[in-house]
Amino acid sequence: MFYSFKNDYSEGAHPKILNSLIESNLTQEEGYGNDTHTQNAIYKIKGLIDNKNIDIHLISGGTQTNLIAIGAFLKPYEACISANTGHIAVNETGAIEYTGHKVITVDSNDGKVTPNKIEEILNAYGNEHVVKPKLVYISNPTELGTVYTKNELKSLSEFCKSNNLILYADGARLGCALCVKDADLTLSDMCNFTDSFFIGGTKNGALLGEALVIKNDFLREDFRYHLKQKGALLAKGKLLGIQFEELFKDNLYFELANHSNIMANHLANGLKEANCEFLIDSPTNQIFPILENNLIEKLQEKFGFYVWKKINDTHSAIRLVTSWATKEEAVTEFINEVKK
Amino acid sequence: MFYSFKNDYSEGAHPKILNSLIESNLTQEEGYGNDTHTQNAIYKIKGLIDNKNIDIHLISGGTQTNLIAIGAFLKPYEACISANTGHIAVNETGAIEYTGHKVITVDSNDGKVTPNKIEEILNAYGNEHVVKPKLVYISNPTELGTVYTKNELKSLSEFCKSNNLILYADGARLGCALCVKDADLTLSDMCNFTDSFFIGGTKNGALLGEALVIKNDFLREDFRYHLKQKGALLAKGKLLGIQFEELFKDNLYFELANHSNIMANHLANGLKEANCEFLIDSPTNQIFPILENNLIEKLQEKFGFYVWKKINDTHSAIRLVTSWATKEEAVTEFINEVKK
Amino acid sequence: MFYSFKNDYSEGAHPKILNSLIESNLTQEEGYGNDTHTQNAIYKIKGLIDNKNIDIHLISGGTQTNLIAIGAFLKPYEACISANTGHIAVNETGAIEYTGHKVITVDSNDGKVTPNKIEEILNAYGNEHVVKPKLVYISNPTELGTVYTKNELKSLSEFCKSNNLILYADGARLGCALCVKDADLTLSDMCNFTDSFFIGGTKNGALLGEALVIKNDFLREDFRYHLKQKGALLAKGKLLGIQFEELFKDNLYFELANHSNIMANHLANGLKEANCEFLIDSPTNQIFPILENNLIEKLQEKFGFYVWKKINDTHSAIRLVTSWATKEEAVTEFINEVKK
Amino acid sequence: MFYSFKNDYSEGAHPKILNSLIESNLTQEEGYGNDTHTQNAIYKIKGLIDNKNIDIHLISGGTQTNLIAIGAFLKPYEACISANTGHIAVNETGAIEYTGHKVITVDSNDGKVTPNKIEEILNAYGNEHVVKPKLVYISNPTELGTVYTKNELKSLSEFCKSNNLILYADGARLGCALCVKDADLTLSDMCNFTDSFFIGGTKNGALLGEALVIKNDFLREDFRYHLKQKGALLAKGKLLGIQFEELFKDNLYFELANHSNIMANHLANGLKEANCEFLIDSPTNQIFPILENNLIEKLQEKFGFYVWKKINDTHSAIRLVTSWATKEEAVTEFINEVKK
Repeated sequence: MFYSFKNDYSEGAHPKILNSLIESNLTQEEGYGNDTHTQNAIYKIKGLIDNKNIDIHLISGGTQTNLIAIGAFLKPYEACISANTGHIAVNETGAIEYTGHKVITVDSNDGKVTPNKIEEILNAYGNEHVVKPKLVYISNPTELGTVYTKNELKSLSEFCKSNNLILYADGARLGCALCVKDADLTLSDMCNFTDSFFIGGTKNGALLGEALVIKNDFLREDFRYHLKQKGALLAKGKLLGIQFEELFKDNLYFELANHSNIMANHLANGLKEANCEFLIDSPTNQIFPILENNLIEKLQEKFGFYVWKKINDTHSAIRLVTSWATKEEAVTEFINEVKK
Repeated sequence: MFYSFKNDYSEGAHPKILNSLIESNLTQEEGYGNDTHTQNAIYKIKGLIDNKNIDIHLISGGTQTNLIAIGAFLKPYEACISANTGHIAVNETGAIEYTGHKVITVDSNDGKVTPNKIEEILNAYGNEHVVKPKLVYISNPTELGTVYTKNELKSLSEFCKSNNLILYADGARLGCALCVKDADLTLSDMCNFTDSFFIGGTKNGALLGEALVIKNDFLREDFRYHLKQKGALLAKGKLLGIQFEELFKDNLYFELANHSNIMANHLANGLKEANCEFLIDSPTNQIFPILENNLIEKLQEKFGFYVWKKINDTHSAIRLVTSWATKEEAVTEFINEVKK
Repeated sequence: MFYSFKNDYSEGAHPKILNSLIESNLTQEEGYGNDTHTQNAIYKIKGLIDNKNIDIHLISGGTQTNLIAIGAFLKPYEACISANTGHIAVNETGAIEYTGHKVITVDSNDGKVTPNKIEEILNAYGNEHVVKPKLVYISNPTELGTVYTKNELKSLSEFCKSNNLILYADGARLGCALCVKDADLTLSDMCNFTDSFFIGGTKNGALLGEALVIKNDFLREDFRYHLKQKGALLAKGKLLGIQFEELFKDNLYFELANHSNIMANHLANGLKEANCEFLIDSPTNQIFPILENNLIEKLQEKFGFYVWKKINDTHSAIRLVTSWATKEEAVTEFINEVKK
Repeated sequence: MFYSFKNDYSEGAHPKILNSLIESNLTQEEGYGNDTHTQNAIYKIKGLIDNKNIDIHLISGGTQTNLIAIGAFLKPYEACISANTGHIAVNETGAIEYTGHKVITVDSNDGKVTPNKIEEILNAYGNEHVVKPKLVYISNPTELGTVYTKNELKSLSEFCKSNNLILYADGARLGCALCVKDADLTLSDMCNFTDSFFIGGTKNGALLGEALVIKNDFLREDFRYHLKQKGALLAKGKLLGIQFEELFKDNLYFELANHSNIMANHLANGLKEANCEFLIDSPTNQIFPILENNLIEKLQEKFGFYVWKKINDTHSAIRLVTSWATKEEAVTEFINEVKK
């Protein structure tokens, strides 16, 4: 049977979410996120973060969340700084530029942004003939599967604060980052160290949905106006509320993310046993093994994945992504196929 | 028991849709609308419209659909014409203006736009010191529940064509309009008489979703780039596909809309029997009875609805909205309460 | 000889300005408004306003000034309120909408906005499904030649302050307003009663140039970034500096405006003697006499002007505009022609 | 006496332009570019280009011209390609991004864009998850003073055509490029090889003004609407018309540019005699000599210029710019100062 490791959104939602959808289906609720489920989900997340003085908004997808948040946070002449691999820099069809803002990229081998890289940018700017760098965009995990450790995020946070920069984190796969033990990061840390970040649902067991957390008082003002103006206030907002309610009941969110990581680690370990090298060392649910082109072609008959990067004339890196729904048998089968 | 006639998005989705979500849940699908369900839904809708040479895109909500479509269709200096009651003119937090375009409003008592009204606008414009009116926005049914007859839409269409104007129809509640027999309009007519329109799902049995139909060749180009840039390409696009697949299987879409209309008609007839007058005569699922303020207050204890407009010191018009899920008992109870 | 009363920008600049351009021509100066002339002009204007704690920026034209100021002052979901005759509402090709903001219009017979009109708007708005009215745009004189009295402006100012609204005044013809004695307004009043306003040069003796005054601290931040981003920082900024330096040396600005008003008053008085009625009573340099269509056609052979509005089948209102350069003979000739 | 080589806009306008301003000052003209001078200037430029089937618009400055042209030419999801040194990429405060478009940069040592560089970009793009590269922005001369030869521009033009890309040239200092004999380029070539380009006036003897030429039919449509919407239609448009009329009467434009180049060549030759090396070899009016930091400090007492780039701990490159008004004595004095 054909199995896809192409991404973490090939399947639907965790069954608990579907059950809750069915159970609540005919109960009348207020529209536009004023329903009891959304309020309850927000209450649960605030509890986990252990901070009542934050705003949380549930939004359909990651690109939409990024463009609304960044578009709301910046003045017209202000710009973002992002790694050159950052999702907003590469894969959002100029959504940030459409809101009017330049994305200044810094070169990065591991997908991460460091205080040094930002400082170089700040030194090169500083008058009205160039944009004003104001927001640092990071993704955690990065688009290469790497994660920020608590210390890394703390030093980034301090640097941003002392330079009057907004720190914003794209957490499309945040669950996977928080389940990496060595990184030692919690939801609460994410909130403490950033001005705003989002908790990705779509890629961790929801049908759709990201929970945007805004801590910075100044950035919270009138945020629902931004949501409505960009078409992000769903009439049946309870669809989002129900999902985050389930994900943050009984620790489901972290269980699912942990499963993704474990499946990816199994894959990586199996491939290492087969003497496979990797483009980069990733502890989360995206891994980038380097394989012979012949083997890649063969694997493509049975498995779905992206060929990520040409390494040389005979080898390429591929991207394998696991999800909350990945089955151990599929992982084993892929490893066996490579070992053959 | 408290019952809400506030809107047609208080409940969830028709059970058939939920069933289909569950059945398809773990089948891996391509992302971003390239899944089999979306393709199948599009195929069905094209069949119903009886035109293969159109593009159909599934989008989460009405405001999002309007801003993406209008933003894509117009050049920077071009403007829309809308009734002063039009959703884009009033209730979208300046979403169209955010895309850079002026909304020119024409006064309208019944929510409809007529060739005469448009002609007045065209006569008042015509040089580079003012915007260029280019797109006529209509909603069918209108925000007042009224509908365009086939003849009305045809003459609007001809006027627009001969004046080089794009005709775009917001069909957030299109099912209800098409189930009004006197109007004599079909999905196919909607496509023939407009350059683009959308078929609303959110307010007719779906959890979320509108199907945007684009007939005009020039307007179809690269449309998926617009969707992605505005954050409207859902990773798990099959969520939308499954819903329209179900809605357009076995005529479900029209059955649900017809039910809404019938419930509203029941309500209206019951109120007429009680000698109630109406702000406007509406054949669809929104009705606007005029009641004594005392009575309104009393009704509010048992029923949810909006007070729409002050009529005089003792009376106001309220808005009652029925949906695919409205139960006949609730209708009866409301009428009885008024009759008391 | 043919003479145009079409507008107040048919001629060039006052000779003193041209002289100054010639005298300073080969002196090297810093670019982008950092030259000595611009600094000197700003110093003079601050002195006249009697407030050092304001920012002044010299900008090429009125539409450009409006779009930059309003675009800078508002957040994406905020809107302007303007009279339906306001320049930004009608004659700027959607420039404000291009910056993303809705222009909400209030009906006005005399081109003025009143606290009552604004209050009606505020009452109709107030949640995230509609834009947030935040800035009141007035023009003084209005597009109909009328002016705000000191008391009117004061009460508008108080209303805006107590409702947390920004008050912004378009002063394309401000000189003419300030020379109306009954209005009793000074440059200093304009600054005290608004958050920002501009002093028009183009229509009062300059080749081009408007001086934007920003009093509100919050609105002043980083304003030169906005200017540069919208292409408004002229490399040879001294071109603007020299003009305002001359206009505000020896009272020239007010002398020229006063001349415009006097010429218009002569015209109006002459026409009144000839039993002519007026569309509106204007004390400034735009007047709107109502004439027989036959006479209008005849006058058009010798004079340039706009036919402003059809009054009935035999009569229309025309617009006559005088300027700093209008010659008394042309005025006399026009009156004589009518009297014949 | 202190002398500035900081830029080519420190002085005013060529005396012939000022004379013409004075002579025409009190003649009444139509506004907004419909005056006889503007029409005459356009007629002359069309004659020089030898093409009647083009549109020409006179605009105040370079950044404004770039943002209006590129904003008008591109659809929302389309992007520009520019050298990393390009003015739009670096020095316009995100003006292009404000119009909604991404600027994709290619690395370039000499400020030029080549077909190979563009091809690399095209290969990396190509689906709706990324922007669509559509316009190639070049500057001639580049920001480093280098120029495109006729052959280089021809091959760029052919590459763009065959890849359906718009080729747009920023000619802020175009006169200087066209006066480089080895480049062998004419105004007519500029028009033949691009879809649109502009002829810079501000930096070549005008007070302000750039002449935007649009050849491509599709890009010409309704262009004055764009001008008005961005605040670029000057009421007294004749100010621009008069200047281009003079610049293109009797070859003045090329005489002035030639003078700039000659002065820069003198400077460069003098510095070479003094064994000075250069950051890059430039045949136009910007040169980038590398000097000892000690010497630079000393020179700064007598001359204005920018320190451009640190070369090593003891040396830096500076930028020297000459203009139509540069006096030979200043050049000689600078050389002598270095030779000392």
